[in-house]
Amino acid sequence: MSADFSTLAEFRALLAAAPATDAKAKAGAEDRNGQLTKPPGALGRLEDMAIWYAGWRSNPRPSINAPQVIVFAGNHGVTAQGVSAFPAEVTEQMVMNFQHGGAAINQLSKAAGATMDVYALSLETPTADFTQEPAMDEAGVIDALQTGWNAVSADADLLVVGEMGIGNTTSGAAIANALYGGDAEDWVGRGTGVDDAGLAIKARVVREGVALHGGGDGLDALQKLGGRELAAIAGAIVRARSLRIPVIMDGFICTAAAACLEATQSGALDHVISGHVSAEAAHHALLGKLGMDPILNLGMRLGEGSGGALAINILKSAVACHSGMATFAEAGVSDG
Amino acid sequence: MSADFSTLAEFRALLAAAPATDAKAKAGAEDRNGQLTKPPGALGRLEDMAIWYAGWRSNPRPSINAPQVIVFAGNHGVTAQGVSAFPAEVTEQMVMNFQHGGAAINQLSKAAGATMDVYALSLETPTADFTQEPAMDEAGVIDALQTGWNAVSADADLLVVGEMGIGNTTSGAAIANALYGGDAEDWVGRGTGVDDAGLAIKARVVREGVALHGGGDGLDALQKLGGRELAAIAGAIVRARSLRIPVIMDGFICTAAAACLEATQSGALDHVISGHVSAEAAHHALLGKLGMDPILNLGMRLGEGSGGALAINILKSAVACHSGMATFAEAGVSDG
Repeated sequence: MSADFSTLAEFRALLAAAPATDAKAKAGAEDRNGQLTKPPGALGRLEDMAIWYAGWRSNPRPSINAPQVIVFAGNHGVTAQGVSAFPAEVTEQMVMNFQHGGAAINQLSKAAGATMDVYALSLETPTADFTQEPAMDEAGVIDALQTGWNAVSADADLLVVGEMGIGNTTSGAAIANALYGGDAEDWVGRGTGVDDAGLAIKARVVREGVALHGGGDGLDALQKLGGRELAAIAGAIVRARSLRIPVIMDGFICTAAAACLEATQSGALDHVISGHVSAEAAHHALLGKLGMDPILNLGMRLGEGSGGALAINILKSAVACHSGMATFAEAGVSDG
Repeated sequence: MSADFSTLAEFRALLAAAPATDAKAKAGAEDRNGQLTKPPGALGRLEDMAIWYAGWRSNPRPSINAPQVIVFAGNHGVTAQGVSAFPAEVTEQMVMNFQHGGAAINQLSKAAGATMDVYALSLETPTADFTQEPAMDEAGVIDALQTGWNAVSADADLLVVGEMGIGNTTSGAAIANALYGGDAEDWVGRGTGVDDAGLAIKARVVREGVALHGGGDGLDALQKLGGRELAAIAGAIVRARSLRIPVIMDGFICTAAAACLEATQSGALDHVISGHVSAEAAHHALLGKLGMDPILNLGMRLGEGSGGALAINILKSAVACHSGMATFAEAGVSDG
């Protein structure tokens, strides 16, 4: 299946025409939830998650059998400015590690019963240094959006998108600053572990990038301050919406990529929940801008889709309770 | 295997002689953790959980293959005072529901790959109303402790203990108040959903119970203010320690039962982690008294072991990362 857009204008039109949740299936799920053998509300957020999932799947009693995890990798021109604790060649080394099954995301995908795909996006040609020129031209960002779009399996019933890209917390911070304002210092964090000097460099790089490229909409920010893996994440999220596949979002970078969609089209993330809040300093604030309440808070800051994949089993469990529990009538239990 | 105690004095001696974690295995796990292909600390609490698990299993590279969930059910004399939103017969009805696979804990156990056992403890004979006399005599609490002790499978490599018992949040609150002081109002909550009048009754019942039975150690509180399912939970936790089986604790009632052990013998819960903080008002404070940081916070308040079972996949994932990831040397990744 090839992507249905070849310009950002066409992609904006797709975003504007995205399908809504199925109100009838959602109402059916709410009705069922009220009959299950538990005090009202006793499963807390699991109940909300199951009802949300039912709406997007157009099924008041759904199940999750085919989660897909996709990791997109990209390289960033801004690494030349010294924004990361790791050298840029680690992106490609980690792609090899993903392909050989040695990374955290491999283990987490397996534990979640998910397939896992890896896409390396032109690693040999980093995006441009956004302090000098736009990270990508329009053809470049379209190409990455299409890679993400085409990577989503139509047979998946849940999607987690993750990323690998030395330097990409700087890109995420620049996007967040462009979209939500404030100071560069509000949005930069230690990433894989930069020291105070590295953090100051990140803030300067973000400030310069936003001064040069700020002012457009979310997709402009994605093109000019993002990276190929961020654009691919955005493309995959929109494709999942068109296929009515709910998405669990990973950490800071993934959230920055997703925020470009919401900033362009309000409601673009209605089929997306936040899997976790990471230890990257600005992630909590970024989720707040999107009005999202993360499922997990375990001090993780790895990326790769790790926090999103870890949350798959929570959503699976929520849906299993919703669809598998007996009703008060079926079980012959007094309902208080 | 039958239990190695027939008096509370013998049970106290067992608690005092409990095995410690395996420092060598734990150090081995810490060393391995430092070599895995991720920035240091990037898996956050997953790293701590895996290392903790490795120590208790005496294996620096462990796996989790046989989790066991056990639900203990008991009836409470204090229900006669109107402390619950549900009638007492619901305890037995829910036991039937567990046995027929219709409850939340059935779905959550299955989603966690865990076996699930249910023990109904003399439901036809509720414990005594603790505002009038001790809930159990010494023989009664020993019997329940032994049921819990004997329920633990020696082949399990992870244990979750849960409970069902209309009225048992009142019992848990009374124990917490006896162990940690404060006002009865600090420890009572809405349980399955009592209104303000019900909440006031719970506070009065707790106040009267603590006035009558307070002042002993944790096991005294367990006997006089507890219930059979709480004592069985305590017995299972101690048996798991003797078998070096780590335990994930469920919610408020389970935590109150566990607190009786810690109050009797400091360190008794070193092999126990908290699976979640429930929406029952005093659970957060009770975990604070034990210095425990829950894995999940999803507004659940169901009991049955549900929050503990939901956390199994988190711990499994943590251990899978720890034991399955490649090292920097194995993967040929630059380590920064």
